[in-house]
Amino acid sequence: MQHPENSEEYKGLTVNEGVVSPPTVNPYAVFRRKRKKLEVEDYVSGILAGDISILGQAVTLVESSLNSDQAIAQKVIERCLPYSGKSVRLGITGVPGAGKSTFIESLGTKLCEAGKRLAVLAIDPSSERSKGSILGDKTRMTELSMAKNAFIRPSPSAGSLGGVARKTRETIVLCEAAGYNTIFVETVGVGQSETAAHSMVDFFLLLQVTGTGDELQGIKRGIMEMADGIAINKCDGQNINKAQVAKTQFRNALALFPPTESGWKPDVTTCSAVEGTGIMDVWKMVEDYIVFIKRNGYFDRQRTRQAKYWMYETINSHLLNSFYQNEQMEHLISEAERKVLNNELSSFIAANQLLEEYYKML
Amino acid sequence: MQHPENSEEYKGLTVNEGVVSPPTVNPYAVFRRKRKKLEVEDYVSGILAGDISILGQAVTLVESSLNSDQAIAQKVIERCLPYSGKSVRLGITGVPGAGKSTFIESLGTKLCEAGKRLAVLAIDPSSERSKGSILGDKTRMTELSMAKNAFIRPSPSAGSLGGVARKTRETIVLCEAAGYNTIFVETVGVGQSETAAHSMVDFFLLLQVTGTGDELQGIKRGIMEMADGIAINKCDGQNINKAQVAKTQFRNALALFPPTESGWKPDVTTCSAVEGTGIMDVWKMVEDYIVFIKRNGYFDRQRTRQAKYWMYETINSHLLNSFYQNEQMEHLISEAERKVLNNELSSFIAANQLLEEYYKML
Repeated sequence: MQHPENSEEYKGLTVNEGVVSPPTVNPYAVFRRKRKKLEVEDYVSGILAGDISILGQAVTLVESSLNSDQAIAQKVIERCLPYSGKSVRLGITGVPGAGKSTFIESLGTKLCEAGKRLAVLAIDPSSERSKGSILGDKTRMTELSMAKNAFIRPSPSAGSLGGVARKTRETIVLCEAAGYNTIFVETVGVGQSETAAHSMVDFFLLLQVTGTGDELQGIKRGIMEMADGIAINKCDGQNINKAQVAKTQFRNALALFPPTESGWKPDVTTCSAVEGTGIMDVWKMVEDYIVFIKRNGYFDRQRTRQAKYWMYETINSHLLNSFYQNEQMEHLISEAERKVLNNELSSFIAANQLLEEYYKML
Repeated sequence: MQHPENSEEYKGLTVNEGVVSPPTVNPYAVFRRKRKKLEVEDYVSGILAGDISILGQAVTLVESSLNSDQAIAQKVIERCLPYSGKSVRLGITGVPGAGKSTFIESLGTKLCEAGKRLAVLAIDPSSERSKGSILGDKTRMTELSMAKNAFIRPSPSAGSLGGVARKTRETIVLCEAAGYNTIFVETVGVGQSETAAHSMVDFFLLLQVTGTGDELQGIKRGIMEMADGIAINKCDGQNINKAQVAKTQFRNALALFPPTESGWKPDVTTCSAVEGTGIMDVWKMVEDYIVFIKRNGYFDRQRTRQAKYWMYETINSHLLNSFYQNEQMEHLISEAERKVLNNELSSFIAANQLLEEYYKML
C-alpha cells in the first residue's frame, strides 16, 4: 500500500492543512492523512521503540516504487542495520493445500504465548495477479493476527522475483530492529521463490502432506534437497497412519541425500496444525538446528554469505535488467532468439551480436 | 592445446617455409607444423566428411583464447549448425570413485561395437589445477580410445565454469556435424558443472556406488533431483547384495520426488562397469527415455529451451564479467563487501553505490 502522503496528488502539501479532499472515501486513507509526514529520524526511533504502526509505515516505504520513498527507506534501513540480525529466521514452504497458513497460525500463536516476538513475511512474486495470495488474507490467521507479539505482512505486491525478494529481505532488517526475534518467511513451492527465501533464512522447512506422487505436484524438484527439515502436516484422524508411513519414507529418502554443508542431518517430523499436535516438535527441530550451527560456526558463516549474496544479487540483477529492459534491445533480442531457435545462428554468435549492439547504445 | 601456427612466434609465417625452428622438440608440434594452415572452408568440409583429425583441430580452435582463433571457430560453428542436433546427448556425473571412467569405457565400447559413433566430452573447470582431471588421462579408457567410432576429448583446460561449459557446448555442435550420433558429457559431482551439463544434454545420469552417508560425500545436494536416472555401479562380487538394497532405497527415494517436467519417472538400475554387466540396461533406460520424450514433445521443447538458455547465459556472463573484471572496480567491490560484512552498509546500498561508480566509468 502506498502512502497517500506520497502520491502525486498530495505532493508538497502537509497533510494537516487539509486542502485536498481524499479521492476516495476510504476511511483508512482519511485516517492516514491526519498523520504527520515522518522523517527518517521518526521512522528509526519508532522502529527501535517497537512501534508497530511506524514499522508498518516503514515497510510500506520499502515496498514503494517511488524514488522519493526509496531514498527515505534506504536511509532508515541503514540506520536500523546495526540493530538487526538477532533473530531466528525460518523459511516455510509447501504446496497449496499443505496447510501453511494453519501451520503458521498454530506455531506462531504458541511462540507468541511463549514470549517470542514474531514477524511473518512472505515472498510471492505472483501475489497481485493470482489474488489468492499467500498471507494476503489475514482472516486465515485470525488468532495470530490479533496476538500482541505478532507482526504479519503479506508479500510485497507482484513484481520481479528479485524485486519482491529484496523488499522482503529489507523488511527483515526493519522487523529485527523493532525487536522481533523470530522471523517466518513463507513461500509457495514454485522453485525460484524458494531459492530467494533460502538465501535469507537460517532454517528452511518443507511442509508436506502424506502420500506420494500427485500430492507432491507443484513442489519444484530440488526443493526437497534444500530443506533442513520436513514436517508432515495433517497427521490427524484417519490420516495418522499414512502420515507415520510418510515420515519413515521421507526419513529414508533424506538419509540417501549427501550431507548438508552445515553438517546437520535434516529430519522429518509429523504434526497436525489443525489439532495443534506435534507443532512444538517442529520448533524443537529448528532450535536444535540453531544450537548445532551456532556451535560449529555455520550460523555466522551462512549469515555472512547471505549478506554477500544479496549485495551481488542486487548488482547482477541491475546489470542484467539494464540490458533486457532496454527498449531498443527488445526487438533485437526477440529477433536473435528466433534465429537461434531456427538453427540459423549459434547461441554464442547471437549473444555476441546483441552485446555489440548494446555497448554501442550505452 | 594451442596451434603452434597461431602462437605469437609463428605469426605471419606460413609453416611450410620452415624459417622458424620449433621452440621445443615436441614431435607432435613438429608434425603439426608440417600441416597447412586451414581455412574455415577446410574445417567445415573436413568435419562434414567426418575427418577426426580436422575435427580435433577445430575443437582446439574452439578452446583457444586467441581472438584470431575464436573468429575462425565461430564461423566454423555457424556453418556446422545446420548439421548438428541429431544425436542423443547423455550427461554422466558421479563422485570420484564411482567408476565414471570405467563405466564410460564399458558403455562406450559396447555402443561403438553396435555401430554408434560416440564423442566423449567433459566439463571440469578445475581440470588444469587439479591435475587428476577427468578424461585427462586417456589411458584410463584404453579400449575406447582405440575404437574407430570414438572421439574422446578431455575437458577444456581450467577457466571459469561459463567459459569451459561454452566450449564443451560448442564442441558438441562440431561433433554432431562430424556424424557423432551419441554424445557423452562427463562431469565431476561438484554442483555447478552439473547444472551446466544438465542444460546441454537430453538425459542426465547419476552414477552412484552402494551405501549411504559418507560414500555420497562430494555429490552436491540437488544433483539427485536433477537426474533422469541413477545407475548403481560396482554391483559385483561381495557388493551385489548391497547394490540391490541401494537400488531399492534409491527407487523409494525417487518415488517421493515430485514429478519431472518431462513426465518421465526416473528409475534406478545396477551395473558393474568392471564386469560389463547391466551396462546395456542403463543404455536401455536412456533409449526408453528418448522415445518417451520424443513422443510427448518434451525432447524438442528441451532442446529449444537449451538453445535459448545458452544465448542468454552468454549474454549474462558477459554483462557480469564486464563489471567484475573491471580493474578499477575491484578495489571498490572488496571495500564494499567488507562494509557489508561489518554491518556498516546494507547489501542494497552497497550494490547501488558500486553500480553508480561503474556507470560513471563506462
